[in-house]
Amino acid sequence: MNDLLINPRDLRFQLYELLNVELLTQRERFAEHSRDTFDAALETAGQIAAEQFAPHNRKGDENEPVFRDGVAETIPETKAAWRAFAEAGFLAAHHDAEAGGMQLPTTIQQACQGHFYAANVASAAYPMLTIAAGNLLKAHGSAEQQAQWLPRLLDGRSAGTMALTEPHAGSSLGDLRTKAIPQADGSYRIVGNKIYISGGEQDITDNIVHMVIARIEGAPAGVKGISLFIVPKYRSDANGEPGEHNDVTLAGLLHKMGYRGTTSTVLSFGDNGDCHGYLVGEPNKGLTYMFHMMNEARIGVGVGAAMLAYTGYLHSLDFARQRPQGRPVTAKGSGSQVPIIQHPDVRRMLLAQKAYAEGALALCLYASTLFDDSTTAPSADDRGHAQELLDLLTPIVKSWTAEYGCKANDLAIQVLGGSGYTRDYPVEQFYRDNRLNPIHEGTNGIQALDLLGRKMAQNNGAGFKALLERVRGSIADARETDLAAPLAVDLEHALATVERTAGELMTAMGKQGPEPVLANAWVYLDLMGRFVVGWLWLRQATVAARALHHADTADAAFYRGKLQAAQYYLRWELPQIEHHSRLLTGLDDTCLAMAEDWF
Amino acid sequence: MNDLLINPRDLRFQLYELLNVELLTQRERFAEHSRDTFDAALETAGQIAAEQFAPHNRKGDENEPVFRDGVAETIPETKAAWRAFAEAGFLAAHHDAEAGGMQLPTTIQQACQGHFYAANVASAAYPMLTIAAGNLLKAHGSAEQQAQWLPRLLDGRSAGTMALTEPHAGSSLGDLRTKAIPQADGSYRIVGNKIYISGGEQDITDNIVHMVIARIEGAPAGVKGISLFIVPKYRSDANGEPGEHNDVTLAGLLHKMGYRGTTSTVLSFGDNGDCHGYLVGEPNKGLTYMFHMMNEARIGVGVGAAMLAYTGYLHSLDFARQRPQGRPVTAKGSGSQVPIIQHPDVRRMLLAQKAYAEGALALCLYASTLFDDSTTAPSADDRGHAQELLDLLTPIVKSWTAEYGCKANDLAIQVLGGSGYTRDYPVEQFYRDNRLNPIHEGTNGIQALDLLGRKMAQNNGAGFKALLERVRGSIADARETDLAAPLAVDLEHALATVERTAGELMTAMGKQGPEPVLANAWVYLDLMGRFVVGWLWLRQATVAARALHHADTADAAFYRGKLQAAQYYLRWELPQIEHHSRLLTGLDDTCLAMAEDWF
Repeated sequence: MNDLLINPRDLRFQLYELLNVELLTQRERFAEHSRDTFDAALETAGQIAAEQFAPHNRKGDENEPVFRDGVAETIPETKAAWRAFAEAGFLAAHHDAEAGGMQLPTTIQQACQGHFYAANVASAAYPMLTIAAGNLLKAHGSAEQQAQWLPRLLDGRSAGTMALTEPHAGSSLGDLRTKAIPQADGSYRIVGNKIYISGGEQDITDNIVHMVIARIEGAPAGVKGISLFIVPKYRSDANGEPGEHNDVTLAGLLHKMGYRGTTSTVLSFGDNGDCHGYLVGEPNKGLTYMFHMMNEARIGVGVGAAMLAYTGYLHSLDFARQRPQGRPVTAKGSGSQVPIIQHPDVRRMLLAQKAYAEGALALCLYASTLFDDSTTAPSADDRGHAQELLDLLTPIVKSWTAEYGCKANDLAIQVLGGSGYTRDYPVEQFYRDNRLNPIHEGTNGIQALDLLGRKMAQNNGAGFKALLERVRGSIADARETDLAAPLAVDLEHALATVERTAGELMTAMGKQGPEPVLANAWVYLDLMGRFVVGWLWLRQATVAARALHHADTADAAFYRGKLQAAQYYLRWELPQIEHHSRLLTGLDDTCLAMAEDWF
Repeated sequence: MNDLLINPRDLRFQLYELLNVELLTQRERFAEHSRDTFDAALETAGQIAAEQFAPHNRKGDENEPVFRDGVAETIPETKAAWRAFAEAGFLAAHHDAEAGGMQLPTTIQQACQGHFYAANVASAAYPMLTIAAGNLLKAHGSAEQQAQWLPRLLDGRSAGTMALTEPHAGSSLGDLRTKAIPQADGSYRIVGNKIYISGGEQDITDNIVHMVIARIEGAPAGVKGISLFIVPKYRSDANGEPGEHNDVTLAGLLHKMGYRGTTSTVLSFGDNGDCHGYLVGEPNKGLTYMFHMMNEARIGVGVGAAMLAYTGYLHSLDFARQRPQGRPVTAKGSGSQVPIIQHPDVRRMLLAQKAYAEGALALCLYASTLFDDSTTAPSADDRGHAQELLDLLTPIVKSWTAEYGCKANDLAIQVLGGSGYTRDYPVEQFYRDNRLNPIHEGTNGIQALDLLGRKMAQNNGAGFKALLERVRGSIADARETDLAAPLAVDLEHALATVERTAGELMTAMGKQGPEPVLANAWVYLDLMGRFVVGWLWLRQATVAARALHHADTADAAFYRGKLQAAQYYLRWELPQIEHHSRLLTGLDDTCLAMAEDWF
């Protein structure tokens, strides 16, 4: 086991003490499960991550896939890791038992995945994308399509990709140009170019199933004319047995700052006019399907960002405990050097990392429970509320973890000092790998517009109301404890600020239109991120405060750490939303009014 | 010319409108100079930077120096760049004319250097270190030592290094173990190991002059027993002609996140007991000499961090003007895609970069004028005041530029999105290169202790008082203009906060001792950094407000940009010191109280 991937005590705390995930086993879908089966899955994940993923993390970084004769060659360890992942059943972890899946809750599945991200995010990206493609097929593909493509995605003979971005349009998906030309047999011919397609080509699997968005000839312009297609690398028979090459060609590999072990590709579809695509669901609903899948994919990005932060934190903690350097200020230069963890500024950097990493994981796992609730909660009402809150939180899960995950990794480098800046230690790679997360799956700027421009008002603000209600409940709960009660005051203050800010912005949106309000959407996103994570820290503090009363020595230290990290977050990070609120409610136009030629 | 290194209009503004550097020509030392000679030097620097440094910036990153048979091999372009730099006289830019120097003010010299950092910081590191070694020799070496070593450091036949750090001690210089054993001939034999020595070995110059700190046998322990030595790679005759190898061996090269074109070395001194060292100045005063030179070196780090931020800003600005993607929120999805600079969130990221980059450059150039004043101001009083203020500002110059320089580069990556994450664009390299700056030449944590633990109280707080006085003057000045007057209110508010915070901390330091105060030194460093940069932005806004009244169209846009960036900084970044102040004056002990076993 690699004890620098995640703190298993914390994972148990989050799953079983904070989120009570064990209760999920009372639901029919998870009735065959128990805490033991959850733990077994988590342990297997940890073991495979440590043995098959972590050891080649640096090698993969230093040996990017090579473009040779139209093929992308990866290192052998990536293939071995893929096989181990698939053979342990993780590609099908949350799928039905009858389809060969483990039928695990998404919360447990994401926690399992987390180990792989911490160990080697680049090698873990291939399965992550394959799982996403499988989910899309499972949700929207026809029975025939599922029979043809899904079994191989679930057992690892095929991999999947998400092919959205085009060179000229980037995030602006409505501007895509890839064409789908209807054929007499009901299939389509696909013609176009895609860029930044992770895993778009590799030598790991027998086939690759691209989930491609394209515009059917004659369809409306913009986002309303986007359809979703299955476009395999090799066409196949009804059982998915790969046959003829499908005219999908690798135009080039992109060379990235990090995530280097994952191929990032430029793909050409139909250079020879012979690229077959198969429509998923109805025409022109492709983006709706994609967005449906996005909730899950964005939680996945969050988990990746959180776990890179987490492993960086553990690595820097380990270093700080072992590295003697300098003396306390009170020692006035005499005596032996002390481990740097004794320096308060090093503790600040470790505590901030702990607050970010464990806070990010809590946020992702909480969002995962909402996902599970939205699909398996007993009452329709509960499922609906969970969905509403999940919709609201999704942009926060994706962006806050990415933003503060990178900050955590930055602090890990700083704790290691000169060592952290060398490639002999892994922390600089964690930063480089994590730096993708604020960009892909919708940049953080796009998440901000999604939150303030769409999710806040969605369904009459139901998600936001649900959030405030739960926050109030947590504050009341914290007040009943000795040690979390003081922190509840901080969150209550923030709650008032958030409520007032949101109210004023919604009013302003009505009166002055979206432009002056949305111009500062990023500030609002950060305000909400700090608030939600502050809430989850108060909840952790509350659980810790109660548990402390009957904890043994080791557990007591763990719970004290939770309380102190909560205090750090609520006292050091949360109050900055007051400043955010002033900028927002004043409709500060500094950025909006900056003319192009003034730069 | 490469117009993405620096905005020449801004450089003119900073030097001649903001800092009135032309007035320096009234001083005897610079009497031969004029604005024309300054501009000629700057233009030459810009040209050589563009032609000899920028073109191999990426190649140097991708082709790290190789350790082969005890030698570090660099790419040929690095050698050519070195020669061009030396032949243009920049190694001796601020040295006496009679020694072959240009006798330029440090302010102009640093502005010249800035071009090279922006173009290729890794290749520029060799001359930077050589200049620093030369300064040390010039200030503290004997006449014979200067005659022997200096001419070759000034004309580029030799390079210099600063050899401080040892593997077991890192920043804790007092713990160094390198020994100096006195010899009958007055020289010493040096025995020890150094790590992270930039430029410690290379194949660029005929000889390398290491400035090494070591402890003479029998000297006191700790920082009071440190002496400074000249330790050449090759011993030489009285004219510096290199002869015998001096038993300094390359034990290995370190592989870094960025700055890859600069060798980072592990050096062994005296493996065979035959490494000759020559004492500089008096025994046991080595660290004093080093710190004397540090002011200049830390300004150099600041300029490097500022210029990497600056070129990253210009690259992302250029990209944002050219890249069409998406539409304004008011367009509701119709019409053509617009350049991304039209999106308010992109403008925010550009404006923040502008505020950081131009603010950082202003800070460094201002500190450089203080350096020039401390050495050449007509009255002893003025020289003294300048030195006091410079001492106070030095940790801020070094750390604020590094911290926010990296943030600027991070934003540049974000503006470019997926492109920024690839190595086809240079912004990710700027980040990786810049990430060294918060670490070397004293980590930011060490700068924080220097500021709050030493500089604030130094000479009865003279530096701090001088700062507040100058800030008050700038506020009064801004109040006399139409457009900067509103911003003066923001700075005045911050001034009150800073004064009160500092007062309370000094009182607490007396009452409760240094520990609870210094525990949050980093927060104080950030508070002071924001305040000082806010002040320099108000000064820029004041100059711009006045100049706007008689500006042509292009100049008017430039001045408007200055005013808007000042507004951004004073409204968005400066007010966060209120939160800092609360943590500080409350002696918040969250980090200090975090026990080791709670992590």
